[in-house]
Amino acid sequence: MADYNAPLKDMKLTLDHVARMPELAQKPGFEDASADMVDAILDEAARVARDVVAPSNWEGDQQGVQLKDGSVVCPESFKEAYQQYAEGGWGSLQFDPEYGGQGLPFLLSIPVMEMWHSANMAWGLCPMLSQGAVECLDLNGSDELKEKYLPKLVSGEWTGTMNLTESNAGSDLSVVRAKAEPEGDHYRVSGEKIFITWGDHQMAENIIHLVLARLPDAPAGVRGISLFLVPKYLVNEDGSLGELNTAGPLSLEHKLGIHASPTCVMGFDNAVGYLVGEPNRGLACMFTMMNNARLSVGLQGVSISERAYQQALQYAFERIQGPAVGTKEPGPIIRHADVRRMLLTMKTLTEAGRAIAYDACGSLDFALKADTEEQKELEKARAALLTPIVKGWCTEVAQEVTSLGVQVHGGMGYVEETGAAQHFRDARILPIYEGTNGIQALDLVGRKTLMDKGEALSALVQEMRSSVAACDPSLTPQAKQLEEAIAGLDRAREQLLKGSVDDEQWAGAVAYNFMMLAGYVCGGWQLLRQGNAVVRLMAEGEDDPYLQAKLESVRFYMAQVLPRWKGHADMVADGSRSIMALSEELFASAWE
Amino acid sequence: MADYNAPLKDMKLTLDHVARMPELAQKPGFEDASADMVDAILDEAARVARDVVAPSNWEGDQQGVQLKDGSVVCPESFKEAYQQYAEGGWGSLQFDPEYGGQGLPFLLSIPVMEMWHSANMAWGLCPMLSQGAVECLDLNGSDELKEKYLPKLVSGEWTGTMNLTESNAGSDLSVVRAKAEPEGDHYRVSGEKIFITWGDHQMAENIIHLVLARLPDAPAGVRGISLFLVPKYLVNEDGSLGELNTAGPLSLEHKLGIHASPTCVMGFDNAVGYLVGEPNRGLACMFTMMNNARLSVGLQGVSISERAYQQALQYAFERIQGPAVGTKEPGPIIRHADVRRMLLTMKTLTEAGRAIAYDACGSLDFALKADTEEQKELEKARAALLTPIVKGWCTEVAQEVTSLGVQVHGGMGYVEETGAAQHFRDARILPIYEGTNGIQALDLVGRKTLMDKGEALSALVQEMRSSVAACDPSLTPQAKQLEEAIAGLDRAREQLLKGSVDDEQWAGAVAYNFMMLAGYVCGGWQLLRQGNAVVRLMAEGEDDPYLQAKLESVRFYMAQVLPRWKGHADMVADGSRSIMALSEELFASAWE
Repeated sequence: MADYNAPLKDMKLTLDHVARMPELAQKPGFEDASADMVDAILDEAARVARDVVAPSNWEGDQQGVQLKDGSVVCPESFKEAYQQYAEGGWGSLQFDPEYGGQGLPFLLSIPVMEMWHSANMAWGLCPMLSQGAVECLDLNGSDELKEKYLPKLVSGEWTGTMNLTESNAGSDLSVVRAKAEPEGDHYRVSGEKIFITWGDHQMAENIIHLVLARLPDAPAGVRGISLFLVPKYLVNEDGSLGELNTAGPLSLEHKLGIHASPTCVMGFDNAVGYLVGEPNRGLACMFTMMNNARLSVGLQGVSISERAYQQALQYAFERIQGPAVGTKEPGPIIRHADVRRMLLTMKTLTEAGRAIAYDACGSLDFALKADTEEQKELEKARAALLTPIVKGWCTEVAQEVTSLGVQVHGGMGYVEETGAAQHFRDARILPIYEGTNGIQALDLVGRKTLMDKGEALSALVQEMRSSVAACDPSLTPQAKQLEEAIAGLDRAREQLLKGSVDDEQWAGAVAYNFMMLAGYVCGGWQLLRQGNAVVRLMAEGEDDPYLQAKLESVRFYMAQVLPRWKGHADMVADGSRSIMALSEELFASAWE
Repeated sequence: MADYNAPLKDMKLTLDHVARMPELAQKPGFEDASADMVDAILDEAARVARDVVAPSNWEGDQQGVQLKDGSVVCPESFKEAYQQYAEGGWGSLQFDPEYGGQGLPFLLSIPVMEMWHSANMAWGLCPMLSQGAVECLDLNGSDELKEKYLPKLVSGEWTGTMNLTESNAGSDLSVVRAKAEPEGDHYRVSGEKIFITWGDHQMAENIIHLVLARLPDAPAGVRGISLFLVPKYLVNEDGSLGELNTAGPLSLEHKLGIHASPTCVMGFDNAVGYLVGEPNRGLACMFTMMNNARLSVGLQGVSISERAYQQALQYAFERIQGPAVGTKEPGPIIRHADVRRMLLTMKTLTEAGRAIAYDACGSLDFALKADTEEQKELEKARAALLTPIVKGWCTEVAQEVTSLGVQVHGGMGYVEETGAAQHFRDARILPIYEGTNGIQALDLVGRKTLMDKGEALSALVQEMRSSVAACDPSLTPQAKQLEEAIAGLDRAREQLLKGSVDDEQWAGAVAYNFMMLAGYVCGGWQLLRQGNAVVRLMAEGEDDPYLQAKLESVRFYMAQVLPRWKGHADMVADGSRSIMALSEELFASAWE
């Protein structure tokens, strides 16, 4: 067996019966996304992921990256994989044909991205950041900037980075201190940025940094931050590369995981940069991109979960230990009930996360192609609501799944050579970057729920109830379990709206549990939708064994995963009292 | 602030008001364990842990261990710390004065052990394994072996190891293949053992290996395994060291964590060994010790949780980010509700685990000193029941606590220099070694519950209900929350007894959730006991701020942690159907 095989059947079922791909392919401009084309793209991506990208994963982790003479050196196999990726046009699927993109739905790029991150998450971060840079530039850049920089970013000849964080400006970007001084048609950017993913490397000819900095006359706070494009090499009028800019890596972080993804401290020393968008509107520009980046990180949670599942499953078939209940001879450990419990928990959490993520991404395409303004707003609000759930819940879940992946391996899971530990280490960044999950949870309860008085969430709950109502009778027990959980989520919504009226701490105190509650319920909902589709397909005569497995996923999730909603709902109902009561001085009172 | 400060107030409250230390000190032979003596011992241990052991923790992780010329080289600071430990007599607290021990209660050694593991878990494993060897030899060895080997093991001049696992014999020891041939008054032991913690080092003069192997005529399976004592250096009649035995490390594992604890592949090549206990009864001999070792590993879960909490707390006070709700200026992140939620989850899970662990260990002392056979059996059954909960639950909880420790640090948590990631990596071994948590869960539902028809668990439930009934009115809301959870545990007990009658998979399928349910309920119960004690102490005029903090721990745990019991209870009630239904071929059906 290969290290990684794309779960194509689950990806396709999810595209077709959760994320509305066939409907999307009817929209003007998306005619190319026919079922045959989708299949062909996914099959070929699966091959590249399996044969080209995945084999570099463990080696990359062991070799890591080094800073030599001011440049980052990454494993040779990464460069080769990147070249095949760029030459295959894999980075251009969803982008504007005007800049060399293929004009396919964003949704179609999602399973493809999932594959890269399953195959090699450290490597996949480089294309992911580049896509973010393309989106940001496309939405906010002047025509001149777009014409000069987009084609090579879209083609993958150049890569992109996001430079937000400074040592004192993490979750709170209002205190960004990097500076930009105007000079002719450009600016001079100075400052130090930390945690810059793929801030330098030799896999591509040039690197386009998007950098938050302050203009000389900028007001304090978030309304005084502007966005600048700072290329590693300056670009001449004819598009050829000019001299090296004064922007480069100062040092690399020594991290718990994603060892082969260079996390740079970047120094900008009077570097030539170009303003992107309006002055002092940099944070807004970044946010347009950040939403997609958050979906991508949620998707990474799905990816690393899938990879951990596949590895644990293989071990569970290979490892022979004493007889399981009901057998007389030693056999593979997958025969033990507790190993099955672990594997099925991994499997169904991954499937649920995949479905939520794809569905959210689909809404972005539907918003883009909406026939009416009302439809557009509905799809936008739906995607916006699901985004923190995808980022937060799928990455929390990835912690559990990758940890179970270690556990299935027993003692061998703790030995690095086995590889299970790498997924566990790699996954640990996901709840942190691109807005910690605490920030995601605040986004969900604040901007996405309180701000619209719970309207988008009510609409989602209504959608869920429709799925329950439309459920095939063979899934009635599962629909009933879900129905109870949906009611719990709806109650939590009411409690949030009510609790926040007189208690300014309420929303922040319950945010995390609200997000987890919403995630478990959404996961169950998506699995029920899949279950319904599967029953229909089977009635139509399809008999792939995968369909039977999906029905068991639905049953397992409702019985063995979904019940966690109750704890989270109780914690939401509890509000802020028990969280805010202990005075700060008393946290250390057992030893002070 | 130091890296680690023993939480002495919580340790003492737990000893006195949960684990019945004052009552134990009245028992014949334990008169020395007066309150003053306990205080003096804990205070001095806290100093050694803080000043001598803790400073070597991060350095040890970075340096790791190497195998050079057939010997393990560990950090110099480890050797120095070990020498102070041995010279201070810290390894002899609870052992028989006949062999140089101090004859103090086992219970008193527990907070001391907790401190070593908090200070440096990789280092603490060496004393821990030695204590296991002492217990095993004390219970099973001949007088001759005991006289020759125990005094130096008790004094810490020598250390001990446990050699059970082979590459094909992990959770299933029945297939152990190492061999022992009789030769005169001794045996010749041959074979290869893996995962041998501190299998070699230079911190002590000699190492005493306890090794499972088969005699030539031994029956197959678990009833054909014997236990042998194999010294690194042979010991002459006069106790001086003789020649090097043919037993030593072949290689070291490259592990996710506990980098400075050498995990050896050990080769025994016709090595001189001595039979411990009866032939073919080796597994039983090992099991007597393994129960204590399981308690120790559970305690390590408490230790690493405490350490992670202290580190996260310090960061939460130091790290300044944007204004929290209700404040206008940037301030320490501990002011944010979600950071408080994380810290309080860490704090209360740690306190709950500490109380369960100390209480279980206390029962072992009470069994030893029981006035009647009936009392002895009750205390033994109580300790036996709590052991898999301590090992399983406290180590599962340690995964969450150390992960929250990383999360509180945000991006800095993912950078190794910060140290939070080390605790997260170190903790990951705990659910695996000394019997995986799957094995613990099976022990809890099988040997500890089904085998006695739920009697010991019923007795524990009864004890819990008495605590609820005796609860101070000021804690009535918390007692009510707990009462509901206790009823849930009692229902799960009934379901287990009933479900197992006709379904041989039932117990194994529900085991993990049964263990987690029991753990959360026990944790709530212990905190309620502490809360009651605190109310009494405050009524008597004690006004240490720590007491107020404990009351808030009780409230937080019941409202924000305990509700998880509901999910676990639902999963137990679901039984085996959804876990066993999917046929093995279909686990990979999404890509095959």
